Amino acid sequence: MPAGEIYPVTSIRETSKSELPSVHGKQKEYKLIQVKNTWCRVESGHEIPCTWEEDQIMVSQAKIGENISNSGISWTVQAPIVFRYKVVESQDLLDPCNPTLLYGHVSSPQELEIYQKKPQRRLIVIDTTVDKFYGYKVRKYFEANNVNYKILPFVTTEETKSMDLVMSIVEEVHKFSLDRRTEPIIAIGGGVCLDIVGLAASLYRRRTPYIRVPTTLLSYVDASVGAKNGVNFCNCKNKLGSYTPPAATFLDRSFIKTIPRRQISNGLGEILKMALMKHKGLFELLELHGKHLLDTKFQTRSGVTNHGDPALKTTRLAIETMLQELAPNLWEDDLDRLVDYGHVISPELEMKVLPALMHGEAVNIDMAFMTHVSYVRGLITLEEKERTIQCMRGLELPVWHTDCTMPLIKKALAERFKHSGGKMRLPLPTGLGTAEIFNDVSDNTIEAAYKTWEEDCRDNIP
Amino acid sequence: MPAGEIYPVTSIRETSKSELPSVHGKQKEYKLIQVKNTWCRVESGHEIPCTWEEDQIMVSQAKIGENISNSGISWTVQAPIVFRYKVVESQDLLDPCNPTLLYGHVSSPQELEIYQKKPQRRLIVIDTTVDKFYGYKVRKYFEANNVNYKILPFVTTEETKSMDLVMSIVEEVHKFSLDRRTEPIIAIGGGVCLDIVGLAASLYRRRTPYIRVPTTLLSYVDASVGAKNGVNFCNCKNKLGSYTPPAATFLDRSFIKTIPRRQISNGLGEILKMALMKHKGLFELLELHGKHLLDTKFQTRSGVTNHGDPALKTTRLAIETMLQELAPNLWEDDLDRLVDYGHVISPELEMKVLPALMHGEAVNIDMAFMTHVSYVRGLITLEEKERTIQCMRGLELPVWHTDCTMPLIKKALAERFKHSGGKMRLPLPTGLGTAEIFNDVSDNTIEAAYKTWEEDCRDNIP
Repeated sequence: MPAGEIYPVTSIRETSKSELPSVHGKQKEYKLIQVKNTWCRVESGHEIPCTWEEDQIMVSQAKIGENISNSGISWTVQAPIVFRYKVVESQDLLDPCNPTLLYGHVSSPQELEIYQKKPQRRLIVIDTTVDKFYGYKVRKYFEANNVNYKILPFVTTEETKSMDLVMSIVEEVHKFSLDRRTEPIIAIGGGVCLDIVGLAASLYRRRTPYIRVPTTLLSYVDASVGAKNGVNFCNCKNKLGSYTPPAATFLDRSFIKTIPRRQISNGLGEILKMALMKHKGLFELLELHGKHLLDTKFQTRSGVTNHGDPALKTTRLAIETMLQELAPNLWEDDLDRLVDYGHVISPELEMKVLPALMHGEAVNIDMAFMTHVSYVRGLITLEEKERTIQCMRGLELPVWHTDCTMPLIKKALAERFKHSGGKMRLPLPTGLGTAEIFNDVSDNTIEAAYKTWEEDCRDNIP
Repeated sequence: MPAGEIYPVTSIRETSKSELPSVHGKQKEYKLIQVKNTWCRVESGHEIPCTWEEDQIMVSQAKIGENISNSGISWTVQAPIVFRYKVVESQDLLDPCNPTLLYGHVSSPQELEIYQKKPQRRLIVIDTTVDKFYGYKVRKYFEANNVNYKILPFVTTEETKSMDLVMSIVEEVHKFSLDRRTEPIIAIGGGVCLDIVGLAASLYRRRTPYIRVPTTLLSYVDASVGAKNGVNFCNCKNKLGSYTPPAATFLDRSFIKTIPRRQISNGLGEILKMALMKHKGLFELLELHGKHLLDTKFQTRSGVTNHGDPALKTTRLAIETMLQELAPNLWEDDLDRLVDYGHVISPELEMKVLPALMHGEAVNIDMAFMTHVSYVRGLITLEEKERTIQCMRGLELPVWHTDCTMPLIKKALAERFKHSGGKMRLPLPTGLGTAEIFNDVSDNTIEAAYKTWEEDCRDNIP
């Protein structure tokens, strides 16, 4: 097939095929303005007709390009949709006097007024394990606030993370006769629970607001922050899903106190990722307070007022750095992503050894290897490499796995290449808390790194 | 619950509850800039640090607001996602020499290069009836172009428009091992087929590009233009779905020649809607050439070169006016929509009499009634009312239905009120080709309109 030719229009590009007469088409771009409920188009660069008063008109950010040629008209629509969501720290989220869970997502007094016009109703989807620990408090919260509520406990694990469960949820949503404008669905649980509910909400009536309440450390710093949701399909992780952010995420660290120690390490793996990529201060916090954070399960008496508290500082920095990377790339259009660190080899490893490794553990093994890639390539010093590995051990994260073999790594890198538009796009640390994306890491470097890694980390349990 | 208080930050608003200490929080807004693969935040209004060269940095349209208070931090993310899609007229779309179906969606030479690096593969979902008429041409097209293709014929009707069918399609997509970057799914059929495939594509890997090829007049001017997709659920129309525009829609009027006459009228109903709301010229075209368009099924020898051809002019104006209304409101955030004309009473009527009325017919009965509402309210003259009704008859569309009773109308208006944020939001013509949204239409007006409508249209078959 012959290559196309390009006609640039301000910020819209149009390809025409050389076989088609449209190559000689007439290009125009229109902006859209609304006058008295009607949208009209005005050619870009042209004045808006002065028959309309300025306060009567509204100008859209959307644009329509038009190419008229002998083969017909071709329109190009360019329409920005602005996603807005909140991530809110809140102490004692389930204290009946705390209004956050009911109204914390509301973004204007006009909206609040609509809410308060009628009795409150809420549908809550909760993970069964979380329900055992906190269900009574959740029920008490809604009862004390006179809310007409329904709680749906579901087993939410990688095994149940399916479209079937999504359909069960939308059926309940439909039965509850939910008002999509004023009754957000509330999800309380770990990442799997938040992902399933997020997909159900995004499908129901094409988009129903939902609220995320993460109850594990991993979901607190990871699933809570972005727009992604999804379910597993045909034995593939998150193969079906969407990018629909919640109306709000409410963060209450007190849920973490009932989480087993290994799951705290699991969450620390994702926090360490952000530290290594972006924030030396966060790395030093983990280095210094890792054991303390594990021992205290991120619980502190000081709540959110003591700004020196390591649990508070660590979680805040993790979220802040994550938001910085996710907000400009909410729909993952840019494939060069630092947040992919630890996620290049780990999917392959996770699939192979499941359920032996938790997600954050597999991520950490990937990062431990990549640290050696960086070192061999001369991006980080010996000391930086050793501090990194030492920190991982301090967080009680595995730095080696026998199943993470050289063939597995090569296979994973080939997959990466295939799904990343023919580039490697390898995020690698270039110091403690700085990183860049590399496309030219050679097989020699990978092999030398593997050797060093093996010498360093194999059988060398902390 | 007490009302919230409001803190304005440039274009981000933040509600704080009066019980929470955050009322006295410190507000900041950050823009996001990327330097060497790393996103950093810079406080809005502050200079970007001069240690970075201008050509090294990229500024995101996304922003993060931050409110620090005694109750914790609250972040507000505001991230615009720009949707781009094409709507392309094409003659002889299935002519093997026409590259549109394969590459018409490609938007840059860089993208085309990625496409042409490897052999082409395409998955095509086609309605079984369309397959009978055009399947051999579709197969010939891909064979002649050396494409590795798979055609999936499905019965796509309101009855099969379900999540089950969506899952069957994603399973086939998965089996085909589709490359999401270079192998868009192609849907060929009427609105139902395009809707189902659109949802399947939007779910697979969170967003897989798809192409719409409408084969009915209704889908040519309606489903082809916007972002909506969906399936029926719990006996409700399009209860599950998403707003994901296709990569491109390819319009070939020649498909319409095999459509029964009643289905042409059905499509004309939606075209008339746009005419009545926005375009007197389009109305006059329908008034003058309605019978001719029905007789010729929108087929003309002149193709797309004769700009005076009514079939060409009618379809172009229908699409142009639709795009103007849809592009600025792609995710339907604004509830004041002229495109809702004919869609206030008709959903209730359709559900009641299905399958006796086709969609465009129910829409027309709704519009015939609303024309009388406009007349009774004094928004249009007697002559304008009569021309409107006469035009509907010329298009062979029903202007009355015995099941469209006063109680049904009242029920539909109450539903409208409930789902439109407590407002009526009634689009009404204010002339031929102009309209506005009204929130204050009284019961008296509705009742008087019903009486006039009954006298005018009942038993008065053309």
